[in-house]
Order: sequence, then structure tokens, then C-alpha cells
Amino acid sequence: MIDYSYIKEIFEYKGMPPVVHCITNYVTAGDVANIILAAGGSPVMAEDINEVRDIVSVASSLVINIGTLSERKTEAMILAGKAANRKGIPVVFDPVGAGASEFRGRSAVKILREVHPDIIRGNLSEMSWLCGKSKGARGVDTSPEDEKNSRLEIAEIAALKFDCISVVAGVEDVVSDGCRGYVIKNGTTHMSRVTGTGCMSSGIMGYFAALSKRERMLDCTAAAAALMGIAGECSAAEYIGRGLGSFRIGIIDYISKIRFGEFMKMQKIEENAL
Amino acid sequence: MIDYSYIKEIFEYKGMPPVVHCITNYVTAGDVANIILAAGGSPVMAEDINEVRDIVSVASSLVINIGTLSERKTEAMILAGKAANRKGIPVVFDPVGAGASEFRGRSAVKILREVHPDIIRGNLSEMSWLCGKSKGARGVDTSPEDEKNSRLEIAEIAALKFDCISVVAGVEDVVSDGCRGYVIKNGTTHMSRVTGTGCMSSGIMGYFAALSKRERMLDCTAAAAALMGIAGECSAAEYIGRGLGSFRIGIIDYISKIRFGEFMKMQKIEENAL
Amino acid sequence: MIDYSYIKEIFEYKGMPPVVHCITNYVTAGDVANIILAAGGSPVMAEDINEVRDIVSVASSLVINIGTLSERKTEAMILAGKAANRKGIPVVFDPVGAGASEFRGRSAVKILREVHPDIIRGNLSEMSWLCGKSKGARGVDTSPEDEKNSRLEIAEIAALKFDCISVVAGVEDVVSDGCRGYVIKNGTTHMSRVTGTGCMSSGIMGYFAALSKRERMLDCTAAAAALMGIAGECSAAEYIGRGLGSFRIGIIDYISKIRFGEFMKMQKIEENAL
Repeated sequence: MIDYSYIKEIFEYKGMPPVVHCITNYVTAGDVANIILAAGGSPVMAEDINEVRDIVSVASSLVINIGTLSERKTEAMILAGKAANRKGIPVVFDPVGAGASEFRGRSAVKILREVHPDIIRGNLSEMSWLCGKSKGARGVDTSPEDEKNSRLEIAEIAALKFDCISVVAGVEDVVSDGCRGYVIKNGTTHMSRVTGTGCMSSGIMGYFAALSKRERMLDCTAAAAALMGIAGECSAAEYIGRGLGSFRIGIIDYISKIRFGEFMKMQKIEENAL
Repeated sequence: MIDYSYIKEIFEYKGMPPVVHCITNYVTAGDVANIILAAGGSPVMAEDINEVRDIVSVASSLVINIGTLSERKTEAMILAGKAANRKGIPVVFDPVGAGASEFRGRSAVKILREVHPDIIRGNLSEMSWLCGKSKGARGVDTSPEDEKNSRLEIAEIAALKFDCISVVAGVEDVVSDGCRGYVIKNGTTHMSRVTGTGCMSSGIMGYFAALSKRERMLDCTAAAAALMGIAGECSAAEYIGRGLGSFRIGIIDYISKIRFGEFMKMQKIEENAL
Repeated sequence: MIDYSYIKEIFEYKGMPPVVHCITNYVTAGDVANIILAAGGSPVMAEDINEVRDIVSVASSLVINIGTLSERKTEAMILAGKAANRKGIPVVFDPVGAGASEFRGRSAVKILREVHPDIIRGNLSEMSWLCGKSKGARGVDTSPEDEKNSRLEIAEIAALKFDCISVVAGVEDVVSDGCRGYVIKNGTTHMSRVTGTGCMSSGIMGYFAALSKRERMLDCTAAAAALMGIAGECSAAEYIGRGLGSFRIGIIDYISKIRFGEFMKMQKIEENAL
């Protein structure tokens, strides 16, 4: 069971905003920075191999996102990730498109061989690929029930394989540490029609991880996933009639104003007995 | 004459969202991704030479935009474009700033020597430059009537020279295949005060092209240009009083909600006898 | 004393929009382009070493921002900056994160050794670092009064050391040419919770500098800082209740619609006797 008094502390944290170092793609970098700021963090986007170790040294967490990848950027991710591991700050890994190209898959594997992530967050096809259970990136013709079972299974496998918290995102997000797990029933399908909602979710997980004790990180990650989903629900309720542009801005709005009370009313985090 | 029943099919397409592979600039990449999603497509932004061929292999169209160019990116564009040509999927080329620097012009020419575009979309100065009729990138002191005639002329020359559909964007967009052509009288001058409306227009053309039969591509391109213009008109009517920030978000809103009925009421696509 | 009739001319400028060449970071490049457009300028984002001299040759000002830096980009900044100096167009330098990493500091110093900036704009820790008075990038435990005095002192030192106009941004921005100075009491603390408000401010300074006579540049820079602050105040008054996403869009809205009359009513530019 989640100890919500601990989650409350994070929501009501009033100290110095923790620095969340992001090495991320250029498509959604601005949105990720803005959502971390909206949550209460201090994002630093820096990716040159000449400086990532210096930046990690002042950071409270590191978010690695392989959205627009290059060899040089992979090298920077590895340098930063190893420095984060040595320093003991949490690393969130978002394997965007793992399996969609040989290069992306190879780079993800290379990063995971050198860097120990504390949290990996991806969709079912990305996470399946990382677990060696690829079913092709698209057009998987399964029932919603089958897909849900796959998410549960892959979340557990990924958590055990990479010895970390895994998040398999989808209609419902599954969060697991290989032993305990949660299903998060927040969110709306509109979110898949805005670029970067996954990247933003990883960013918020980076913020929560920065403030979390290690033994609370599973709970904090589930709370971060729920918060992102709730922001999507609130924004859809208010703005979806206007269109997807307003809906996207509304997500950032709500991340900046959802308080712990609203969060508790809306969260649909369910314990998942494995 | 446009067969609007065909355009209707595209508006009402309910299948798997086609993957639109974009190699584009970092300034407007997020907006381009969001507008393709709003239109109904599935954008993938990937530009590393190590992966563009893999990404093209799962794509239904390719959009190449030289906004923030480098030698490495040019190489990736050529690899991806040649793969798209071999695979037979449509290629949209947006020669941002062609002629504004020697490097940009040289790169555009290099791409066009190796890749056959199905659609080229640029403003008058970019398209004139590609046709070897440069009049300098700015400060062309001509009357609106002269400029209109230049757009008509350059659209035809470009279509014939590059054996493709050409779009010369401006107060009115001109679309031509060298034989038939349309003048699109939608849009608003406010659009030129938002960065990336041209890039977004090319993105929507990439989406329409992905769903279009080859013999319908001229009509689909005209419809895509009209749709972008209509979204601009709707957003201006609702939001321009608030300012250019809201106007920009409103364009994405309207792309996500304009249905075929509204499109037909507002479209001002006129046949242009050449 | 500021000659506001000169500022009025800039607000009411109706000529060809001046080209503001930006070499900036990918996180906020879109926002910077949009705010320059909203102010009335014509932004061109181009950073390849093969083309920056060509682009500078048609520009009216150059904005250099080291947000997401690389060695290649530093080289481009130096090439562009030297060309701007030779041509006599104003250069705005925004040393984002100077001192936060050894690489960033070294690069900033390298740029300043080769390029003469007309305006440098940074926060207290960045500007202190450039002046050799680093106090560490974060966690400076001083009173608001102490911090204000530091901003005044560092602004003067920076202006004299780099022989340019310096802007030390903070709760109140300080603008100085080493001899005269202004304190700008516009703005709101919400602005620090949106990524890129500093980059946008530098962009607007680039626009004002493009239209300014050299002997008026101190006044124009103060006006640009005030305009950005006023846009923040207006947006906060209208949108902060909705959240930080809407607040950010509102800043661009107001930049596009604040006229000279409103500016004069709201500006809080105070002469600062040094």
C-alpha cells in the first residue's frame, strides 16, 4: 500500500527546487522543461560530452530520453548516467522508439549495459523490445484484455531484468519493481495525440525521484504517473472541446496547480498483486 | 476539377494513423509533430544517418525540411529520400531559406539531385531561387498583382523542372503539377507572424500525401494547403484579439477539429487555367 | 533620462521587419522566434558554420545564446559574432549557465575574447561568474537587499569589463553601461517558472537593438527589459489562475499587442545613479 503521507510531503515540498538534469530530444525539450518547472523542479537541459558530468554533479536526478538520438548524444548519456550512478542520484530512462530502428535498439542496449537506471518508462512495444519480446512496433492486433496482460507481464520482466522500477505506459500505466506493482487508471486517450506526453511523464518522474527516498521510489513513480494522467483528464474536461492545441497547454496548466487534495480525489492507483 | 468525394475519404479516414517521417528543423519540430497528430497522422522525428532508412521503411510519407541544416543532416535527408523513392512513398521537400545562404542553396540543390520529391513547398523567393530565377531573398519591391503572377509562373516552372507538384506559398498559395493548377485563397497574413506555419503546412501535406493515391496527389496537396489556411482563418476569428501566442495554439486546435463539412464551406480552391 | 519619444518610434516602427539572426538553444528556439515575430522582427535561426556569415550579412542584429552548447556551435557563434562586429550590427550575448560547467564557462570566455558584444544579459550568478566574482551558481544565501546591491555592482563591473551594456536579470533587472544605469521594476516571479523567459528577453533586446541608434542602445535595452516584464505582469493578471501553460502563451500574446501607450502607463524604469 502506498503511504500517501509521504506523497503529500512531495506535493507540499517548499525547499530549493531540485535540479533535474535532462538529456532529451529536441522535439519536446521545451515541454519537458516547462512541465518540470510546473511540477516544482529546476530543469537543466545539457547534453555535450564536455559538460554532462559537471551538470550531473549539481543535479538531484537525471532523465535520459533517446527521442532524437545520435552517437555523440549516446556517449553523453552514458557519461552522465555513470556519474549519476556513482553519485547515487536516481536515473530515469525513456527508451523512445527502442526497436523502431536497429540503431535506436543498439543504443538503448549500450546505455543499459553501462548505466543502471532506477526507473525505465516506455510503451508496451518499447518495453517488450528491451525485454527481448518484440512483437513489432505497430499494428499489434490484440484485444484490450490481452494488451493489459502483456503490460503487466512485461512490467514485471523489465523490473527484474534491469533491477529497477519499470513503467509500461498505455491506456492504463503499469508500475512495478518486480515484486510489488500498481496499475494506474488515470489518463485519457487524447494524450496520445499530443507529442511528448510520454517524455513529460518521464520528466515528472525525474522530479518525484529527485525528492524521494530510495525505498519510496516505487510509490513516488506511481504517483507521478497518476499526476500526469490526472492533469490530462482535467485538461480534457476543460479544453478538449477547443482542440488539441489548447488541451496540450492545459496539461501544463494543471501540473502547475493540482494540489495534494485534488490529487487524492482523482488518483486511481490500484495495487496489483503479482 | 477536384473530386471532393476523394478529399472527404481522407478527412474521414479511420484506419491506422499513417507514419509521417520528418527530418526537420529543431525550431518548429514540436509544432510540426503536433499538427500532424492533430490532422490524424503519426509523426516520427528521426534524423540520424544510422537510422533514417529503418524509419522510412515503416513510414507512409517523408517530409524533408532544411530549416536548421548541417552537412550531416543533409546526408541523412538524402539517404532517407532515396529510400523513400525506392519504396515508392511520397516525399515532401520544404527548402526553407534556399538562397538565403550559399550553403543552404548548395544543400537544397544537392538533395534535389539525389532525391525525387513528389511535392516541393516554399515561398516565392525560395521557389524562385530553386528555379534559377532568384530576385534576392527580401525586399522585392513589386505590386501584389506582379507578385501573384510571379507565383503562378514559378509554380509552373518548378513543377516542370522538378517533375513534381509545386506549391508557392504566399497571400494566396499556388499549387501546380505543371499542367493543371489551383490557387488557394484561404489563410490570413497573421500566419506569417507565427514561426513554422510553413513547416506545419508541409507537415499536413505529408499527412495527406501519405493517404493519397498518386493520381490524386495534386488535389490532396491543394486541400492540405486550404485546410492550413482555413485553420488560420478560424483561429484568427476566435483568438487574434488575444494575441499571437493564442492564435498559434488555435491553429493546432482547428486542425484537430475541422470536419469535412466545415472544410467544404470555407475552402476557396480555384482552378487555375495555365 | 530616457527620451521616450525615441522609444515611441521603435514601438510604432512600420518599416520592413529587421532580421534578427539567432544562434540559440533548441529548448526555447521556437519561443524566441515567436516572441521576436510578436515584437515585430523577422527572426532567422541558423547555426551552421557554413552559413552563419551569409546570414549575418542580411541581419540587423545578432543574438548569441549558449543554452545548449557544443564546440561546433561555439565556433559558429564566434564566426557570426566577428562578422557582426565587422559589419557594425549589434550583438546580444546571453551566457546561459556560465559557470555551471567548466565547458560552458570556458566557451563563454572564448566567445568574449573574439567577439565584442553590445549587450550582455544574464542572471546574477552568470554575470558574477563572467566578472570573476563567482559565488557558486545556486544557493546563495543572501538577503533580498544584499542581492539587489550585488546586481547593481555586477552590472557596473560587467559593463566596464566588457565595454558594453550589461543587464543583470532578477526580481528587478539592472541595466548599465558602466556610467549610467536603470533599475527596471517590472516583471513577476512567475516568469522564473517558465523556461526561456530569459532567452526571450534577450531576443526582444536583439529586436530593439536592431532598430536603435548606437547612442540610444542603453535606453532601448532598458525599454526591452521593461516590455518583457510588463508582458509577464499582464499575462499573470489574466492567466496565472489557469496555470503556467496559459501564462506562457499569454506572454507572447501581450508582446504582440502592448502599444506604446500601455507601455508608458506600466513601465517602471528608474534611473540609477551610480
